[in-house]
Amino acid sequence: MTDISALKAALGDIRTEDNPAIVKQKSRDFFWYSPVLKRELDAVTGDLIVTPKSEAEVIQVLKACYAQGVPVTPRGSGTGNYGQAMPLSGGVVLNLAEMNAIKSIAPGRVVTEPGAVLAHIDRETRKTGQELRLHPSTYNTASLAGFIAGGSGGVGSINWGGLRDLGNVLRLRIVTMEEEPRVLELGGWDLHKVMHAYGTNGIITEVEVPLDVAYDWVDVVVGFDDYMRAVRFANLLANSDGLLFKEIATVAAPVPHDYFLRHQKFLKKTDSVVLLMVAPHAIDPFLALAAREKAEIRYRSDTASEAEKKGLPPVYELTWNHTTLRGLRVDPSITYLQVLYPFPDHVEKVGRMTEIFGDEVPGHLEFIRFDGNVACTGLPIVRYTSDERLDEIIAIHEDNGCPIFNPHRYTLEEGGMKQTNEVQLAFKREADPKGLLNPGKMVAWENPDFDWESNKVFLFPGLRASS
Amino acid sequence: MTDISALKAALGDIRTEDNPAIVKQKSRDFFWYSPVLKRELDAVTGDLIVTPKSEAEVIQVLKACYAQGVPVTPRGSGTGNYGQAMPLSGGVVLNLAEMNAIKSIAPGRVVTEPGAVLAHIDRETRKTGQELRLHPSTYNTASLAGFIAGGSGGVGSINWGGLRDLGNVLRLRIVTMEEEPRVLELGGWDLHKVMHAYGTNGIITEVEVPLDVAYDWVDVVVGFDDYMRAVRFANLLANSDGLLFKEIATVAAPVPHDYFLRHQKFLKKTDSVVLLMVAPHAIDPFLALAAREKAEIRYRSDTASEAEKKGLPPVYELTWNHTTLRGLRVDPSITYLQVLYPFPDHVEKVGRMTEIFGDEVPGHLEFIRFDGNVACTGLPIVRYTSDERLDEIIAIHEDNGCPIFNPHRYTLEEGGMKQTNEVQLAFKREADPKGLLNPGKMVAWENPDFDWESNKVFLFPGLRASS
Repeated sequence: MTDISALKAALGDIRTEDNPAIVKQKSRDFFWYSPVLKRELDAVTGDLIVTPKSEAEVIQVLKACYAQGVPVTPRGSGTGNYGQAMPLSGGVVLNLAEMNAIKSIAPGRVVTEPGAVLAHIDRETRKTGQELRLHPSTYNTASLAGFIAGGSGGVGSINWGGLRDLGNVLRLRIVTMEEEPRVLELGGWDLHKVMHAYGTNGIITEVEVPLDVAYDWVDVVVGFDDYMRAVRFANLLANSDGLLFKEIATVAAPVPHDYFLRHQKFLKKTDSVVLLMVAPHAIDPFLALAAREKAEIRYRSDTASEAEKKGLPPVYELTWNHTTLRGLRVDPSITYLQVLYPFPDHVEKVGRMTEIFGDEVPGHLEFIRFDGNVACTGLPIVRYTSDERLDEIIAIHEDNGCPIFNPHRYTLEEGGMKQTNEVQLAFKREADPKGLLNPGKMVAWENPDFDWESNKVFLFPGLRASS
Repeated sequence: MTDISALKAALGDIRTEDNPAIVKQKSRDFFWYSPVLKRELDAVTGDLIVTPKSEAEVIQVLKACYAQGVPVTPRGSGTGNYGQAMPLSGGVVLNLAEMNAIKSIAPGRVVTEPGAVLAHIDRETRKTGQELRLHPSTYNTASLAGFIAGGSGGVGSINWGGLRDLGNVLRLRIVTMEEEPRVLELGGWDLHKVMHAYGTNGIITEVEVPLDVAYDWVDVVVGFDDYMRAVRFANLLANSDGLLFKEIATVAAPVPHDYFLRHQKFLKKTDSVVLLMVAPHAIDPFLALAAREKAEIRYRSDTASEAEKKGLPPVYELTWNHTTLRGLRVDPSITYLQVLYPFPDHVEKVGRMTEIFGDEVPGHLEFIRFDGNVACTGLPIVRYTSDERLDEIIAIHEDNGCPIFNPHRYTLEEGGMKQTNEVQLAFKREADPKGLLNPGKMVAWENPDFDWESNKVFLFPGLRASS
């Protein structure tokens, strides 16, 4: 158990908060998307929220926690879905939200502190005609370092691929968890040591990412009476090299009508939709293609009246994890999966899954670039009945060549490639020798002998809440 | 034979030129790249150069020529390679170079007159942080409408595909060749009626094209001791979604050392090269990838000294048709081909051609997006010996699944898909009922019964020079 008063003494003037209600609130993220994680993690809480204002304060916190053996779990805005920012063994929640300065903007580049919120960064970079390449649907609340530490891609991935792709993050500055914390600058391949590592092997204190040109993206919703027609149209758009989109998604009926309540007035119950962000100068050629394909435009923001637009969320807030979020607000019993439909037969694979599962797993695709080709990743809604059926649905996907990134697991490996990431593990040995950073999230660290072939779920013995 | 004095009378104040030496000079393009076209077209000349200053003057010229039955062949800057702008039946060469105004620049769009030179357009659009998506290697001299009427793609095609792709041209304004010429605005699918039609079915008087973000592209030359290593590296770069290039080309040894004379000091005789334009913010991640692949950087413009850069052409002037041009300056006996290596086995196909031909056909690839995938088009040098061997080389390519767009033919079909373009033909019937626009370039018009299966070369009976 953490000795709060000793720790607070060592932290001096650094802002802390130990009111249990607030600590618990700041110890949570969107883990409750998953009925599995909701059960497992609901009681998780830290002991102390610590809110540094500078890298120097981060160093001071890590040094004090190292000395006292206190776990430290970093947190941006807490918009993750897998308990990434939840302190499984208690200790300090390192709230980086106040380190949110935008340090410099140049052609093609921005440098920020870790807690800078994506939409806020873009408000500044747009003054130079630029915006972030990639953002999750939680654009208005998520922090940049949180996105890099816990996300994989999002809006913009149709043009740039994922965060993992070389070039989508330029530089990270991190602080290690050692007796004398070191400050390291990482670029090139070294970035993979700490990207999508949930903060298990270093605390990000500065980020440099590339910028893209900013446009006044036009939100478009296209309706189809058949889901696979929507999928094929989306695939056609994604492969149309002369058209510029920032987002291409599909959602199967009846999800759009039933869950996109503010857009419901534009939709039929039977509508499967394609959700788009279109560059203004691509609208006319896009409409030429839509007309040829007999695609019916249900909504477009560039011609909608002020009355029609009133209260509507942007289209990106219907996509990625927001699709499920809107569903959960209407029907808390649903959940979701994360599926990759690999190129080149991604459309056929989607068709097969649609046939097998029907309305038990209504389709939701996000079109992305993947190693140079257009592929799609899916975040289908699942009408959840039991853990056993959920596992069965996962197994059927995998048996059909559609790998699952399981969103019902809180560890890096189980939500990812189901194998040890040797680069991240090796770096954790260097940067966090006592294993105090975000404990329980890296199976390879906690249980090097874990048998990935066994298909067992990893149970973190340090999970304080479950004891 | 054109009655020059009657025509000049009908043209009033519109600028004309009938000095035979100047007329002949303005009746030529880069047809002499091809030993075949050089023989066939060397004597071609018009009767009169007419230089309109406005759309109203274009209308007046077309009306007068229609009335007198005079052929009209439009010309931008004469940078084509297939006799596109050469008046096979004499008559008027319509020089559009003086109609070169840039009419408006907006986010993502520019509107210009037809004769505006690409580099000049970009000098203006760069003031707004933007530049053209696509340009040929003749960027500094080619006109925008000439590029659209006679080109297919170029620098930038790695990101945007070709001119044919919906969205890469937004609008064309054209004048028809009728008793009362009409002015038409074309967009969407209608653009294909006149794009890449060599001006055979309308005279372009205004162009609207999309713009991309402008960067200070870094010229990079990478050297390899083996051509296929260069090809695989280029293919890897082209498929790296997070890296931003404007140009990716490969050229096989000994062409770079022997023909790129100003860059020779950086190159070994054995160097096969990858030629790149890299976004400044992609340089560091690019170098990380290059290091992993053991690629040796021979030249990069961002770190070269002023002395090293002195007199060097930009890298794009080593690519596309400039590769051959530089070769021709050193060895006038060479020529070239235009090959498509289709996705997904483009690299294997390049390997096979390299094996078969060796130094008889030194490789030159341009990586492009093609229907959503990365593919490559080739402009290999050919060490020309005879027309028969040239035809044989073409046949071997086609037998191996590598379609040839024959640059040794002056007709649209023979240089293209070897079949009638029904859309362009139908539009010619409407827009040029007398067949006076650029005669001899559309086989389907001149000889509707031409047998495409026969493998015969089309001989234009109206070719005045050969009579």
